[in-house]
Amino acid sequence: MILPESIQSLINGLERLPGIGPKSASRLAFYLLRVPEDIAQDLASALANLKANTAFCQECFNITEAGRERCEVCASSQRDSSLVCVVEEALDVLALERTGGYQGKYHVLQGVLSPIEGIGPDDLKIRQLIARVAQGEIREVILATNPSMEGDATALYLQGQLKQFNIHVTRLARGLPVGGDLEYADQNTLLRALSGRQEMS
Amino acid sequence: MILPESIQSLINGLERLPGIGPKSASRLAFYLLRVPEDIAQDLASALANLKANTAFCQECFNITEAGRERCEVCASSQRDSSLVCVVEEALDVLALERTGGYQGKYHVLQGVLSPIEGIGPDDLKIRQLIARVAQGEIREVILATNPSMEGDATALYLQGQLKQFNIHVTRLARGLPVGGDLEYADQNTLLRALSGRQEMS
Repeated sequence: MILPESIQSLINGLERLPGIGPKSASRLAFYLLRVPEDIAQDLASALANLKANTAFCQECFNITEAGRERCEVCASSQRDSSLVCVVEEALDVLALERTGGYQGKYHVLQGVLSPIEGIGPDDLKIRQLIARVAQGEIREVILATNPSMEGDATALYLQGQLKQFNIHVTRLARGLPVGGDLEYADQNTLLRALSGRQEMS
Repeated sequence: MILPESIQSLINGLERLPGIGPKSASRLAFYLLRVPEDIAQDLASALANLKANTAFCQECFNITEAGRERCEVCASSQRDSSLVCVVEEALDVLALERTGGYQGKYHVLQGVLSPIEGIGPDDLKIRQLIARVAQGEIREVILATNPSMEGDATALYLQGQLKQFNIHVTRLARGLPVGGDLEYADQNTLLRALSGRQEMS
């Protein structure tokens, strides 16, 4: 049996999304067929307008509304301009903002160094980071790339590039996740937690 | 930080889909922001045209292209009209068609009896099933509702309704899933597999 073309093309589109396999794609498509029409229409217009209504902040390269030059964080006078947190993706900014515990600014690299995928320093927003630091206002750069091999390599590369400036370059702490279980922690995490142990006061 | 409205509305739309939580929704939204524009546009138009381009088959209530009265299965002369498989959803038709081992027709109930959710016989395509059987061509009705409490109750109800006709009413076999592991099978499945055991020949 061949599915109606409109369903098949929706399934094909959904299948291309990360984390959605053929079965979830058909389940989603048939779900959307069942729900009130406006739910599918809302989603369709959100998708259609996505790129047209967004732009990159010209300072930190986070995502922002089209037509704005700087994102909400960069435009805010409440934020500490001497502190910059370097992340891989705009999603990471969201994660850090959700903590409510960071008052500095950001710099979104828009990726990570990856020789295997052919992504070098010029493909990321590294030159722009150096330029921001060179302006002299920044006192500390927090390297918050993922604690993965590529994230670590990128942090190491950035550390080298930032050496010329008289600033603090820090990396997010590693150790046991809050609520985690020592028994289930992997070797590397446990080693990091040991070597990074802190005096109780 | 407030996200640009166009992203937030996409995240909200995605979150309403089954099996997609807040984190997957933002991951998908940011992924769609990164991919070439036409991927998001294709998906948007597939969504927008979904309902307009589909209709229900007037015989079996499976999904079909708009403008057609009967679906591909019902319209086919290759299919055995004396055999009808009753399923809950159009997705189940897809699953059975994928096996390649069924040559009869279908009847999609478009749901399952559920007193808790207030879904009674009149909310499903049961009257239409009875009418089809009453025409006299059908010799066997396979009740292929899910092997769940509600699916079983619906099958039992249908069995009662179909008693008046001189036809076979069957239910899909239960037992161990192929490739499954006896050790991990739940009690009920194992009991069913035992009581339904078959002579090796």
